[in-house]
Amino acid sequence: MPAPKVFLKSTKNKFDIGVYLARSTEEVNAALNRFLPRASTKPSTIHTAMRYSLFAGGKRLRPVLCLAAAEACGGKREAAMPLACAVECIHTYSLIHDDLPAMDDDDFRRGKPTNHKVYGEGIAVLAGDALLTQAFEILAQAKGWPHYDHRALVLELTKASGSLQLIAGQVADLEGEGKKTSVQQLRYIHERKTSALLCCSARLGGMSANCTPLQLQALTDFGYNVGLAFQVIDDILDITQTTEQLGKTAGKDVTAQKATYPSIVGLDRSRKIAKDLTKKAFDALKPFGAAASALTALGDYLLNRDK
Amino acid sequence: MPAPKVFLKSTKNKFDIGVYLARSTEEVNAALNRFLPRASTKPSTIHTAMRYSLFAGGKRLRPVLCLAAAEACGGKREAAMPLACAVECIHTYSLIHDDLPAMDDDDFRRGKPTNHKVYGEGIAVLAGDALLTQAFEILAQAKGWPHYDHRALVLELTKASGSLQLIAGQVADLEGEGKKTSVQQLRYIHERKTSALLCCSARLGGMSANCTPLQLQALTDFGYNVGLAFQVIDDILDITQTTEQLGKTAGKDVTAQKATYPSIVGLDRSRKIAKDLTKKAFDALKPFGAAASALTALGDYLLNRDK
Repeated sequence: MPAPKVFLKSTKNKFDIGVYLARSTEEVNAALNRFLPRASTKPSTIHTAMRYSLFAGGKRLRPVLCLAAAEACGGKREAAMPLACAVECIHTYSLIHDDLPAMDDDDFRRGKPTNHKVYGEGIAVLAGDALLTQAFEILAQAKGWPHYDHRALVLELTKASGSLQLIAGQVADLEGEGKKTSVQQLRYIHERKTSALLCCSARLGGMSANCTPLQLQALTDFGYNVGLAFQVIDDILDITQTTEQLGKTAGKDVTAQKATYPSIVGLDRSRKIAKDLTKKAFDALKPFGAAASALTALGDYLLNRDK
Repeated sequence: MPAPKVFLKSTKNKFDIGVYLARSTEEVNAALNRFLPRASTKPSTIHTAMRYSLFAGGKRLRPVLCLAAAEACGGKREAAMPLACAVECIHTYSLIHDDLPAMDDDDFRRGKPTNHKVYGEGIAVLAGDALLTQAFEILAQAKGWPHYDHRALVLELTKASGSLQLIAGQVADLEGEGKKTSVQQLRYIHERKTSALLCCSARLGGMSANCTPLQLQALTDFGYNVGLAFQVIDDILDITQTTEQLGKTAGKDVTAQKATYPSIVGLDRSRKIAKDLTKKAFDALKPFGAAASALTALGDYLLNRDK
């Protein structure tokens, strides 16, 4: 079995991440469309607002990670789909609330006006609330598996998205603005704000394949390290790319005096950290062998992305 | 078996709702205290803010209803407690977000400054999000029962609190401000904003006693009608009581030009509607007999409350 990097470079078994992402994104979008109430469902304002942000061109990184993790454990993507969609609803709600004037006060997201700029703050708060609630309704559509019943699935999602992880990261981020931040504090934020939900995505994918405890640990390690790497790269891109390239306001971290890896340890060291984290992520995948080809390609894609 | 009203008036079996409420509230508060992270848990801001609103002196109507419904079906209150606490977390999150400047813009709740007045809007949004998420984590602590597994419990709570019920009511309320509202539209709002979660409280209580479909239907009818009656009374109290008596700003509905039962059909007709709804609620309890003494007393307490 070739090592992940070699596997990617092999012309014989070259994994086309572009095709995989396009196919997965299409399937995730179709599933989300089925799971969400139609835009015309009364009251249409809220369902239109929920769909506006959910279908605003997100990369579907978390759901794709969930599907790829299921496949790595020998599971089927159909089984993982409700869990993948639940995580995407959580991610989208957190973005809507994150963009509010009382939080990051952002006017654009993925090149489009943010939810509150289109529907007003009141509806934006409620659209976030509705997507958060919807996440658990969709999660309950999952089949449930011998090792992982609905109780386990709910606890997995609440833990990653609750006040000790996702929301804790958001709070620390909010409270850290304009203050001097250490690299340890920055890692605390990134672990919670980004890594926790990516980790959860991979773990839920494994659970949908009724994975072994060892497989779950490997997915945890992969998700955790890819998540941190992803955020370090986000910080790097904020200062190296333009607003047009990113599809969202560039240089915002600097303007808001937000602590970032580049602002604390410099650009070169940040790049090194991202690469080291990705290596750790790849190492975690070794036990899966060729079954992890999608996960490996996904990790590689995340490290080399430009937006 | 005496009819509920007669039962209440019987000196022999007189049910002391005051003692029942005091005992239940104390038990619910203790359970919520156990389920919630400590205020000192990092990041302490969010846990302090969550606890501030959760322990702001709420009447615990929904959790008590849940416990009483469990008892009516021959269940134990300990079994219903996680479900009772989950509903209270949903209720509290909805109040925090409802009070935000972008929504009802209220400075006081239960005689105390609202969450965003104390912690700022950003933290108030996140405290609401965290309580909503916490609700499902607490729900997952329930044991699960032969007829009602965790999947059923999650679906019950998401349905009542999602974009078709609780949030739909909030949206309709927000969009109706300053507009002429029919009594049908007002009922639509009350059914969703108040009745849905009260109904859910009673149903979850029944589920924790592994109730029969007929018992569940009776609890649904009771919760639905008590919920509507409760809201009509809230409208009545808003114009008949002072701010001091209510512990929140009185006359606010009039100031905000909000449609209420008194403003549409007048005070006397509103009182008649509340009484009719409560009668329907009491009728629903007949099949339970004496086991529903707490539920009956609770309905009576709600109709005759002054705040």
